[in-house]
Amino acid sequence: MRVNNLIPNWLKNYRRQNLPADLTAALVSGMLLVPQGLAYALLAGLPPHIGLYASLLPLIAYAIFGSSSAMSVGPAAVLSLMTLSALSSHAAVGSAEYISAAIMLTLLSGLFLFAMGLLKLGTLSNLLSHPVISGFISGAAALIIVGQLPALLGIKADGDTASVKLLHVVQHLPEAHLPTMLFGVVTAVLLIASRIWLPMLLFRLGAPKQIARLGARLMPMFLVLCAIALVHQLGLADKLDIVGDIPAGLPQITVPDFNWNMIYRLMLPALIISLLGFVESLSIAQALATRRGERLNADGELLGLGAANIASAFSGGLPVAGSFSRTAVNAEAGAASPLAGVLSALLMIPILLFFTGVFSELPLTVLAAIIIVAAAGLFDFTGFIHNWRYDRTDGLAMLFTFLGVLLFGVEVGIALGIGLSFATLIWRSSRPHIAVVGRVPGTEHFRNVLRHDVETQKELLFLRIDESLFFSNISAVEDRLLSELKRHPDTRHLVLILSSVSRIDGTALERLQQINKDLRSRNIHLHLAEVKGPVLDRLSRSKLLEHLTGRIFLSSYIAELALQNETKQPPAAEGAA
Amino acid sequence: MRVNNLIPNWLKNYRRQNLPADLTAALVSGMLLVPQGLAYALLAGLPPHIGLYASLLPLIAYAIFGSSSAMSVGPAAVLSLMTLSALSSHAAVGSAEYISAAIMLTLLSGLFLFAMGLLKLGTLSNLLSHPVISGFISGAAALIIVGQLPALLGIKADGDTASVKLLHVVQHLPEAHLPTMLFGVVTAVLLIASRIWLPMLLFRLGAPKQIARLGARLMPMFLVLCAIALVHQLGLADKLDIVGDIPAGLPQITVPDFNWNMIYRLMLPALIISLLGFVESLSIAQALATRRGERLNADGELLGLGAANIASAFSGGLPVAGSFSRTAVNAEAGAASPLAGVLSALLMIPILLFFTGVFSELPLTVLAAIIIVAAAGLFDFTGFIHNWRYDRTDGLAMLFTFLGVLLFGVEVGIALGIGLSFATLIWRSSRPHIAVVGRVPGTEHFRNVLRHDVETQKELLFLRIDESLFFSNISAVEDRLLSELKRHPDTRHLVLILSSVSRIDGTALERLQQINKDLRSRNIHLHLAEVKGPVLDRLSRSKLLEHLTGRIFLSSYIAELALQNETKQPPAAEGAA
Repeated sequence: MRVNNLIPNWLKNYRRQNLPADLTAALVSGMLLVPQGLAYALLAGLPPHIGLYASLLPLIAYAIFGSSSAMSVGPAAVLSLMTLSALSSHAAVGSAEYISAAIMLTLLSGLFLFAMGLLKLGTLSNLLSHPVISGFISGAAALIIVGQLPALLGIKADGDTASVKLLHVVQHLPEAHLPTMLFGVVTAVLLIASRIWLPMLLFRLGAPKQIARLGARLMPMFLVLCAIALVHQLGLADKLDIVGDIPAGLPQITVPDFNWNMIYRLMLPALIISLLGFVESLSIAQALATRRGERLNADGELLGLGAANIASAFSGGLPVAGSFSRTAVNAEAGAASPLAGVLSALLMIPILLFFTGVFSELPLTVLAAIIIVAAAGLFDFTGFIHNWRYDRTDGLAMLFTFLGVLLFGVEVGIALGIGLSFATLIWRSSRPHIAVVGRVPGTEHFRNVLRHDVETQKELLFLRIDESLFFSNISAVEDRLLSELKRHPDTRHLVLILSSVSRIDGTALERLQQINKDLRSRNIHLHLAEVKGPVLDRLSRSKLLEHLTGRIFLSSYIAELALQNETKQPPAAEGAA
Repeated sequence: MRVNNLIPNWLKNYRRQNLPADLTAALVSGMLLVPQGLAYALLAGLPPHIGLYASLLPLIAYAIFGSSSAMSVGPAAVLSLMTLSALSSHAAVGSAEYISAAIMLTLLSGLFLFAMGLLKLGTLSNLLSHPVISGFISGAAALIIVGQLPALLGIKADGDTASVKLLHVVQHLPEAHLPTMLFGVVTAVLLIASRIWLPMLLFRLGAPKQIARLGARLMPMFLVLCAIALVHQLGLADKLDIVGDIPAGLPQITVPDFNWNMIYRLMLPALIISLLGFVESLSIAQALATRRGERLNADGELLGLGAANIASAFSGGLPVAGSFSRTAVNAEAGAASPLAGVLSALLMIPILLFFTGVFSELPLTVLAAIIIVAAAGLFDFTGFIHNWRYDRTDGLAMLFTFLGVLLFGVEVGIALGIGLSFATLIWRSSRPHIAVVGRVPGTEHFRNVLRHDVETQKELLFLRIDESLFFSNISAVEDRLLSELKRHPDTRHLVLILSSVSRIDGTALERLQQINKDLRSRNIHLHLAEVKGPVLDRLSRSKLLEHLTGRIFLSSYIAELALQNETKQPPAAEGAA
């Protein structure tokens, strides 16, 4: 890649009139980036300032390689939870080994993403159905909330699973540390209230609608600063768990520790994290692109996210991805190009150089409150209701993924979800829909006898197979075919309508040949109608056509005309009225 | 279940005139059962007489519960190999622990089969495509042959994998034990020659065709007896590895050792063995039933095989299944009912009581030759050629399963095969076939513009989607749709022909709604045509229909008529000449 190619197109063609909008968006989303960065690093079990580091170079790297105009990349809640889950079985949270494992995990997932981008594997995102993604995110949100309750309430609570942890919290509630709880709960309540009422309040006070909405989004930063001021004024720094000293200065470029054993063990978690980070980011970017009428390039997203994670690994080690909340803010504030992301990253530089001291007295419970409120926004109740109503299996896939995450953790949960998606796909295609059809009087159309008032003929049986024929469903097709022949004992001509059959695999072909042979011995002719071009091409390479007792018709209507002449029977009425 | 129910229907309705045929079949297949039983027990790492035990009670149990009229159940080559593979990692071959593990393995797989039968899970056989089954059996046959070479040649050869073992055999060939090699190779050559030429020879000598064919099938027993006579006459018993003493008498009912740790470790191998034994038996029974015009009951087969394996566990412990070779012989000899199987089992009683001494001087190399020739018959070269020609992916699935078995053993091989089958299914349905279609002039039929000479209209675009719409393929559909719109910039009405769409899942529905919204902003109407009943039912529960910018048409023709009136454009010609 030549250096010139590294200057992205959006920068070459940058229109100066977009600058004010991009600058505003950068300021607003930067104000969100600081508290979220600190909070999500903490959630991942890393020192808070790593979250600020992860908000600098990765954003610039994404702007160079990525394709979305306004997606805000950086620390993200679900990814941080997955990082904690992947690393805590590897090393003690907070230990030097933990941090070096985090760097390696981030590097590996960055490399995976970048490699997938180079290999143009953007279609991998289709591995996950929406119900599974949304069940997963809801489950992760529940885990995040339960996990933050002890920090919010100042309780020491252990427990491997979410339910045990929740039980601990409830049992130890009387021992809650009052000042911690006050700070945390008040922050949480104010955040929720400000989400619901603040925009309306500001609007009524005379602020334009957009400004009112954006103003509400500054609330987390505002609350963080208020909490710091309060702690400082009241001298509470030694009564509360606080962030503590944050090293001033820009991130040092750290070279990851190459430990093959560690790399081997982190391979799978890194793959899962990269896949999920990608899928999550893609669905954010997709929604945004659709709203803006842009086309999204999934392979470009992979490169962008890969570069961002590699950059994050070299500057501290928190996996990054697109963030729902910040992207919404960024877009709303009018971000017109990736420059907004770059500018919000540059905003981190003065903060890291001069203002780290400010955040040292920030109580951890405030960060816990920010995490909890953000996670609560990830729940997808309406999605569940929609899915359940539209398609029970989609609803079940969502529910089981949610429960899987909750009961067995993120890795098992996502594996369960993917497995369920595909199991459903396979299960459905192994139970093909087959309809006995007849002609709608006065037309050339053939429809299900059970749903339409159609004409059928005694000696002709028309079966429409609504699925490609595979090893997994050919038995079901054969069973149905034989039972229909039993119900229509006068059948002399069986016409299989293959309008929905896009493929016939070898196993199904073999069985069809056998069926053809069986029917011949029963003196029934087997015909095919509406065979698609690619299927016919393939069939002509087999022996089925050679031995077929009947013919191949362009359409069911032509088949009826031809066979009717042969049998010379008057039509009989059948079917629903 | 009442005792009366245990008397199977075929026995209640037995027609006496079938008795001679059943008796002949029993004698012929019994003559094959003795050498195969001894050989396959040896192949499984068990004392040879266990193979005779497994040819008694299991056959009677199958006759009571099973459904196939002439399938010969009993020891089978591939199953014995799988038993060896499952148990050799568990205990030393030949040790008491090994035998007790074999009993438990057989019991567990019998229980699994019976339980699957009670749960009516016969459709589980659809998990495996024919190419995978045939790749698996060919791979197992290769493993069996390589595994028997040392015994055939009198060589001590070790090696974990087939290739290493083969290399050992070649390296140690000069050390081959001459008498062993002579006995083995001559037996093998005679067996092969007798398969090819003996029927014709007997036929030319005046035997009726059927008798000639059956005579050739008695060759293994004949060669076994010849070998025994030779060893006895020449006093070679101490120069060759021989079967050794076989305890006289009927099998003792042994109660399996309940060791939970062992049960836990044998669970998975037992499941795989039961599944494969079932699939293999079912395909044998299926072929037979088709030839005889009978209907097969897959759940009945499960019960029959389950009962047979439970019986085998209690009488010694060699897993049993349907055997290709014996079933062919049994059917050819005219077996008319399961009584043939029962009678051939009863034939074991005098052999076990009075003739076990005869077999003590049988050289093991003769059994190795019998195994090798039987295994060679399991190779499916023509199947591979057929699959490869018809469908490259089927051919690849077969090849990879074959190689998987050969390189990594039977368990990994079969897992690879199943994985491949489903991966192909998913991969194919994620790349749907989509065609731009136009009307065949003078008809109501719409066909692919690339394959047919059809009429199209500038402002109407007809797209036929040849696959159900799922999370895994909706992105591909969307991409294609947008690129076709780019190629047809004058499009005002886009008609999606859903004749092949049997289902639309929630993810696809969401995206369709989004597409509908996008098209509205581009002033293009989205119409649906030929929507199937079940799909329409489900769509009417969603919001897509409510917001649809176009209409739903019964057929593409009706859509064209209606939309043509709206746009009022003369038709233009497009498509292949």
